[in-house]
Amino acid sequence: MSVPGHPGHGGRVPEPSPAATRGPVRVVGTGLLGTSIGLALRAHGVDVVLHDPSRTTAVLARDVGAGRLATDDDAPRLVVVAAPPDVTPDVVLAELAAHPDAVVTDVASVKTAVLAELERSGADLTRYVGSHPMAGSERSGPTAARADLFAGRPWVVVGSGESGPQALLAVRDLASDVGATPVMLDARAHDDAVALVSHVPQIAASLVAARLAHADPAALGLAGQGLRDVTRIAASDPGLWTSILAANADAVVPVLEALRSDLDVLLDALRHAAVARDAESVVAGALGAVAATIAAGNAGVSRVPGKHGGVRRDYDVVTVLVPDRPGELARLLAEVGAAGVNLEELQLEHAPSQPVGLASLSVLRGLRDTLERELTDRGWRLAGSSGG
Amino acid sequence: MSVPGHPGHGGRVPEPSPAATRGPVRVVGTGLLGTSIGLALRAHGVDVVLHDPSRTTAVLARDVGAGRLATDDDAPRLVVVAAPPDVTPDVVLAELAAHPDAVVTDVASVKTAVLAELERSGADLTRYVGSHPMAGSERSGPTAARADLFAGRPWVVVGSGESGPQALLAVRDLASDVGATPVMLDARAHDDAVALVSHVPQIAASLVAARLAHADPAALGLAGQGLRDVTRIAASDPGLWTSILAANADAVVPVLEALRSDLDVLLDALRHAAVARDAESVVAGALGAVAATIAAGNAGVSRVPGKHGGVRRDYDVVTVLVPDRPGELARLLAEVGAAGVNLEELQLEHAPSQPVGLASLSVLRGLRDTLERELTDRGWRLAGSSGG
Repeated sequence: MSVPGHPGHGGRVPEPSPAATRGPVRVVGTGLLGTSIGLALRAHGVDVVLHDPSRTTAVLARDVGAGRLATDDDAPRLVVVAAPPDVTPDVVLAELAAHPDAVVTDVASVKTAVLAELERSGADLTRYVGSHPMAGSERSGPTAARADLFAGRPWVVVGSGESGPQALLAVRDLASDVGATPVMLDARAHDDAVALVSHVPQIAASLVAARLAHADPAALGLAGQGLRDVTRIAASDPGLWTSILAANADAVVPVLEALRSDLDVLLDALRHAAVARDAESVVAGALGAVAATIAAGNAGVSRVPGKHGGVRRDYDVVTVLVPDRPGELARLLAEVGAAGVNLEELQLEHAPSQPVGLASLSVLRGLRDTLERELTDRGWRLAGSSGG
Repeated sequence: MSVPGHPGHGGRVPEPSPAATRGPVRVVGTGLLGTSIGLALRAHGVDVVLHDPSRTTAVLARDVGAGRLATDDDAPRLVVVAAPPDVTPDVVLAELAAHPDAVVTDVASVKTAVLAELERSGADLTRYVGSHPMAGSERSGPTAARADLFAGRPWVVVGSGESGPQALLAVRDLASDVGATPVMLDARAHDDAVALVSHVPQIAASLVAARLAHADPAALGLAGQGLRDVTRIAASDPGLWTSILAANADAVVPVLEALRSDLDVLLDALRHAAVARDAESVVAGALGAVAATIAAGNAGVSRVPGKHGGVRRDYDVVTVLVPDRPGELARLLAEVGAAGVNLEELQLEHAPSQPVGLASLSVLRGLRDTLERELTDRGWRLAGSSGG
């Protein structure tokens, strides 16, 4: 996270204007995002004041450490509206009117519809800048909030066309201060992008999960990590997502129609395969259409950036059996450290009803043999390894 | 994993028949599954012989430790056919003929089509039993194999109707020996179940990923964990999956048609929302249909079993900033152990371009406060926590 004096700031920031330094940051809406923003700013010692239409929710956010409750004389320098998209324009307008010296931003996950409604209102938008931090969770509410929710994530900054330079700067600094990377996009480009990388994946996860609602428990017993991964975000909040999808319907519909058209081609091919007695009698082209669907998925997924800033790095993975007792994992990792090997990633999983866990140690290519030898020499049982 | 004398076996196994104790296990097809079976059996000291139509692939499997290369006088007691579904019946028939004393099983992920073709052949199927270990990876080939691939996973055992009790027992024991849990199902129930929990999720992941193949890099830069999870299995092998989907088209088509019908309802609702100027003017029912889609997904995903044997356990999660140097994670975990707290799960993630990692420590509900206090007292920086 950026800190005062961080090189990312030093050269850029002009003499601080009085409005940008005086007064607290006011967070309106203390759900997952608002509370996480509060936690991240509090970690820098920023004065944060919290408001939510539900007083219980605001108090909960205060109690987890996201700031203090708002009062009538806070005089905020920056207001962050963290409300569902459908109510965001009204709240932004109310905050612009109530705090005439403050910059106002919102964190709604759709931008065109919010901006269009603000423009229709005729309000002066020089002090308004849109935001969308690309971070979230299938969990919601202040208790799911995390100070590190935005760490290393993109934070899209969307100017209104009227947005003043000080306002843009204040919102870029907000993004940096919570550990995110500011990304400038216009509202339409943003909405098209999130339809593709967020909204349509959400719909697909929900549609697959919906098929399980009445499934035989024996079938569910066969579920593996693939199903868990595909459907994890299907646990997301229906109210929030109805608001998001309705507000971004313009951008979501064409992507969904293209997906549906691919699905129809695949369904036709599979219907041919179903009536064929064996592979040889499947009509020409049907199997090719199935393979093309999977191959197109290969091509797409290979373009998804990994954890490491856009480049998908391949690691070697060494899996070790770890007795499920306090201290054993620490001993393992102490010995990994003693071998001079740095872990890139680590995952621990308990094999069901077994007194051992499986620790998967990811290391840079080329270090696998060293690590395996060192661990075996020290008496660890390896459960397998993979990679280069 | 089960070992000789394991209580799960003791009461059940009759006097070992000569055929069940003499001779090696022969693995035909040394891709991901075949090689992983070899590795798991070798870990128990079982003699494993390896055969693959590609000699390079067989040698690679031997070199990773999955067994020795097959010879003409191996006299196997059990043959495991690990080939794509479309070639499986022919290979099973050839193995039944070549090894008249051996039990033969296959691990193809579809069972009805394989069994139907075997039955049409007129062969004696008393020595044949179908298998489907519910384990895999989006990676393929012998180098992706892991001895622990089957640990704690279901292994579906499908009798042929003619399968003899010794044959069924041999295949159940194989499943136990590689650490899996045998589950008896008939071929049709198996195929319906995997259509739902494996094949349709694969198709959905591929369809979503395919939309990314020509996406703007700026859009892909906004991708988060949700997209990565939904599309991970889209990296799977097109050849293998064409064979699987074609062979199970009967079971896949109805699930896919139901999904498509849900998709059409949602698309209609979103088209209404797209032309509406604001939420108030969306036609009655359209927003309800969107919410119903997401809610149905909630209901479905809540039924997906978690890691811990079918019961989804909720943990408290404490996230700690860990300097990205050898030994630091070990020191953290040593201090977690010293605090007497057992980790249930652990995930380590590097924040891009930052010299720290984030370690998310999952602990049983109620231990969070203790852990936070102990770690803070010892000077660790907490990045957040969630749960109870």
